[in-house]
Amino acid sequence: MLTAVNSSKKITLEEFLELPETKPESEYINNKIYQKTMPQGEHSAIQAYLSSAINQVGRPKQLVMAFPELRCTFNGRSIVPDVSVFAWQRIPRKPNGRIENRFEIAPDWVIEILSPDQSPNQLINKILFCLNNGTQLGWLIDPEDESVLIFQPNQQPEVRYDSDSLPILSLLTDWQLSVADLFGWLY
Amino acid sequence: MLTAVNSSKKITLEEFLELPETKPESEYINNKIYQKTMPQGEHSAIQAYLSSAINQVGRPKQLVMAFPELRCTFNGRSIVPDVSVFAWQRIPRKPNGRIENRFEIAPDWVIEILSPDQSPNQLINKILFCLNNGTQLGWLIDPEDESVLIFQPNQQPEVRYDSDSLPILSLLTDWQLSVADLFGWLY
Repeated sequence: MLTAVNSSKKITLEEFLELPETKPESEYINNKIYQKTMPQGEHSAIQAYLSSAINQVGRPKQLVMAFPELRCTFNGRSIVPDVSVFAWQRIPRKPNGRIENRFEIAPDWVIEILSPDQSPNQLINKILFCLNNGTQLGWLIDPEDESVLIFQPNQQPEVRYDSDSLPILSLLTDWQLSVADLFGWLY
Repeated sequence: MLTAVNSSKKITLEEFLELPETKPESEYINNKIYQKTMPQGEHSAIQAYLSSAINQVGRPKQLVMAFPELRCTFNGRSIVPDVSVFAWQRIPRKPNGRIENRFEIAPDWVIEILSPDQSPNQLINKILFCLNNGTQLGWLIDPEDESVLIFQPNQQPEVRYDSDSLPILSLLTDWQLSVADLFGWLY
């Protein structure tokens, strides 16, 4: 669960960004620091397989790139989605072409994976914050329920199960993934 | 958590409705039976106070009525929201004016309260099913996070915290409730 730490003392975003990184990562939301949960087996497996699958289809053609546990700092918050996917052209780069260390934009696609006992509203709030800042697609994966809650801007979300296909970024036109494919990685 | 029972055998809605009621209640969703969790302290307190508060403002003027754990059967599912609120005029009644036992319409306002270890996507799916069948407002209360996730038809949901006011049915124009008021009942 994301737990508020140092909640008695308000700090600024700048002060937060100067603190050493923690493990698991900390996030800065509404002037408070929250530490993420330490991912367990299912969470970790989904995060790894999904990042890898997205990169396998997205990197060769320079379409998108998926980053697990990437710190994204924008519009006054500093969050670390489980997986952040960026369109290739939006990936911040240094003048020499290498990927920047600091990402100060919202991902195009944000993926969160629920852990047992984690507060879903806090995770959903993070996804909605992204949507309100330009993110086009959000997934909330619930391993317990073997379902994915799909968020798109200004739309009612929907829950997908079993053989339902999962909406992906429109850049990845050739790729299809069902909910069953996703949870198949756990077996 | 809602747990699928008898999952090896598919039964029809009619067959399900003839089974004896269970405690906690069972729900019929996509041809499967799920048993609700036994509510614990916080869940039970919020459910009781909220139903009571809504009835205190809604009943004297015959505006709305709130029902905890009411079975609602519509569009092929039979669900038991934690709190179902109906506009007064929509409450099914017998010819003599008494409230019907069977409710075969969607509530106008549906409220679900997360219990620890409960699958949020399953609960959210229930709220979305209601919205797709005429419900105007859905709340998902997360006691751990002290927040309420608000659903309205065809809209992106939003999470409210602290002094944020909670949207209520437009019939209850005079009433205001903040998130802090709601969780204040737990102290």
